[in-house]
Amino acid sequence: MNRLWIENGIFVTMDEQQPVVKGHMVVENDRIIYIGEAAPQPEPEQAERLNGQGLLFMPGLINTHAHSAMSLLRGYSDDEALQVWLEQKMWPMEGRYTDEDAHWGNSLAALEMLKSGTTTFVDMYDRMPILAKVVEQSGLRGVLTRGVIGLCSPEEQTAKLEEAKQFAKEWNNQADGRIRTMLSPHAPYTCPPDYIERIVAAAHELDLPLHIHMSESAAEVQQNVNDYGTRPVEHLDKLGFFSRPSLVAHAVHLNDEEIALMAARGVAVSHNPASNLKLASGVARVPALLAAGVTVSLGTDSAASNNNLDVFDEIRLAALIHKGVSGDPTAVPAIEALRMGTVYGARAIWQEDQLGVLKSGMKADFIAIDIDQPHFYPQTDMISHLVYSGSGRDVKHVWIDGRQVVKSGTCLLLDEEKIKAESQRSFERLLGR
Amino acid sequence: MNRLWIENGIFVTMDEQQPVVKGHMVVENDRIIYIGEAAPQPEPEQAERLNGQGLLFMPGLINTHAHSAMSLLRGYSDDEALQVWLEQKMWPMEGRYTDEDAHWGNSLAALEMLKSGTTTFVDMYDRMPILAKVVEQSGLRGVLTRGVIGLCSPEEQTAKLEEAKQFAKEWNNQADGRIRTMLSPHAPYTCPPDYIERIVAAAHELDLPLHIHMSESAAEVQQNVNDYGTRPVEHLDKLGFFSRPSLVAHAVHLNDEEIALMAARGVAVSHNPASNLKLASGVARVPALLAAGVTVSLGTDSAASNNNLDVFDEIRLAALIHKGVSGDPTAVPAIEALRMGTVYGARAIWQEDQLGVLKSGMKADFIAIDIDQPHFYPQTDMISHLVYSGSGRDVKHVWIDGRQVVKSGTCLLLDEEKIKAESQRSFERLLGR
Repeated sequence: MNRLWIENGIFVTMDEQQPVVKGHMVVENDRIIYIGEAAPQPEPEQAERLNGQGLLFMPGLINTHAHSAMSLLRGYSDDEALQVWLEQKMWPMEGRYTDEDAHWGNSLAALEMLKSGTTTFVDMYDRMPILAKVVEQSGLRGVLTRGVIGLCSPEEQTAKLEEAKQFAKEWNNQADGRIRTMLSPHAPYTCPPDYIERIVAAAHELDLPLHIHMSESAAEVQQNVNDYGTRPVEHLDKLGFFSRPSLVAHAVHLNDEEIALMAARGVAVSHNPASNLKLASGVARVPALLAAGVTVSLGTDSAASNNNLDVFDEIRLAALIHKGVSGDPTAVPAIEALRMGTVYGARAIWQEDQLGVLKSGMKADFIAIDIDQPHFYPQTDMISHLVYSGSGRDVKHVWIDGRQVVKSGTCLLLDEEKIKAESQRSFERLLGR
Repeated sequence: MNRLWIENGIFVTMDEQQPVVKGHMVVENDRIIYIGEAAPQPEPEQAERLNGQGLLFMPGLINTHAHSAMSLLRGYSDDEALQVWLEQKMWPMEGRYTDEDAHWGNSLAALEMLKSGTTTFVDMYDRMPILAKVVEQSGLRGVLTRGVIGLCSPEEQTAKLEEAKQFAKEWNNQADGRIRTMLSPHAPYTCPPDYIERIVAAAHELDLPLHIHMSESAAEVQQNVNDYGTRPVEHLDKLGFFSRPSLVAHAVHLNDEEIALMAARGVAVSHNPASNLKLASGVARVPALLAAGVTVSLGTDSAASNNNLDVFDEIRLAALIHKGVSGDPTAVPAIEALRMGTVYGARAIWQEDQLGVLKSGMKADFIAIDIDQPHFYPQTDMISHLVYSGSGRDVKHVWIDGRQVVKSGTCLLLDEEKIKAESQRSFERLLGR
């Protein structure tokens, strides 16, 4: 039995009942068993005690859209038209990846995510067993899915789908339950309708949720209309996609009818503001989505289009850009942006019963922020400070499932020096190959 | 004679002739005297030697629009309509400021700026001698101006202008030349035309540049048209404003004719993306300004509307938002955003002959970034990494005028603990007063 008793801390709980608690939190094994202003009674026995002075504790951040292996391509191509970036830069490099490259790319991403306070992430890519092993080792929590592109022969389509199903079956609930799996057609424009229907059927068969890129660019929406006579939301709905719990990434170009349909179907969104801005995809209609009751979470997308995996950056962007673009300074208030990175993230991956909130009974996935720094003074509204002035660099400690995985900025379960060196070597090999 | 010889470093110089140098830099007193791949010949004698391994050196960041004393109001009011924020929150609190509050607010801002890599800043506010003393003590470089609001009696107008002139005369070129001064009517909508003309005349008399808030909101532009029959750029031009070297803050709402006139008059802009987004002012037409040849620099505005003073945040926003809003992923490339925070900043304050570039003969104002961190790997395009993945928290050392002012994250000339504690006390006093 492991017990941790944090005293004298500030807790931004994301719990509507008691949003900010100055006091105590007790963790037993993988769960929070107490949080409150008063000291726990009776005193927890044989507990490790931590003085929370100068620290702010909050739920670990949840990144609902990533492609970890692509961290090797950070900075390899920027400020290019989308097709140049994708076809001339990303795809040729990705085509050269070996398992080893994927391992180091994934490890680099895990390191960056953990150190910047992300405790749970969603990842869609290939070579997923390699990532699953990195998740297992690093202590991270992940929702992993082998994304499939269907622009290939029926045999290849079937092989990819079988690989995705196999991975999903084999790894669901592994790593002490920290790994969950999904199925993922890559996008409506890269998967023919009948292939999407087969993937939806497989999701029903395995009782899994679905993840997909949707309506990232205006061009892709127009192509959908040209090819299928409908916009992507209606198209996917007709294919039965939303009959499964669904998380769609991007969702930048939506009309009112699509937003209403997504709300009716309970579709969750992974809003990726940095990537959408950097690739010039546009600005998602987040205030309208939130007003319609759609769950909006945050994703970094890959380090090749962001170019970092710091969810604090996405939180701040989500709080800033929708005000500026809408002309309404009350759009996406600080607390709402913070919810997008925590409690709405948990909801978007159907784990709101155990993640995203510091509350008795929830999983002990939480982070400690060093607030004894000038940009957090004067210590007034700490939620505002986290959103408008916080950064992943302010994260000092991280716990997942009650286990400390980052201590004073150091990943306890990963070899940082080796990962940095091998990532560099992998990248140089990819360049030279 | 003080000499510093940095070996084995990566230098992002912002010098078009040699943008990235891997090698050596030598500083003598307040100047860079050598930068190059080869070791300096002959070897500098009696030089302090610094191994630059794992560090990236670049020019110190230049923040061209700030109100330092307002750092005490960080997080005091967010996500409110502009008039509520200003009239019900900011003005009453500012009205309660004492000299002591101003001192601690200014000190807090100096601390945050230095630690996040800003070496030069522009500040428009009142009680400016207090800020000048903080600049003198902290080692910062500042362009300071007592901003005047003319919505008062002629006697008060005169008194404020005299105070502004007195400050400008007394402090120009003080602190070993690190302080420069300007004159500043606060804005066209807060200063009657004849008052602006008097300030312009005073700027001619004292041979000083001018700074002003201009066209921050659409409402203010409309008010200008209603009141004076012209938009702000033409209005100021008619008042002779641009006959002086001029730096305008915000410049969000401009038409093509105004951009052309600003280019013709050599008006520099301080683009404040975070503040403009947060206050829902809109998105400035930066690509059009740059295309017209206008010097566009970056400012944080105050910590009450940002809510941080990290110029890296402004650099990243400048690189991201104009792509997303224009739909052009080549808009404001990484290097251009970095120029806005360095060399264009120097140009905007008429010090491009000595600041903003690492080059022999320039002032030794530079910073060292800890690039041995996951978010800077693989080490590919370091300019991309700085812009899209960098943060003020990555700044390890800072030198201004050849003097080290931050060492391993610690301000050498300021008492951080005292400033944090006194800022907190000042804020609480302001609340209670």
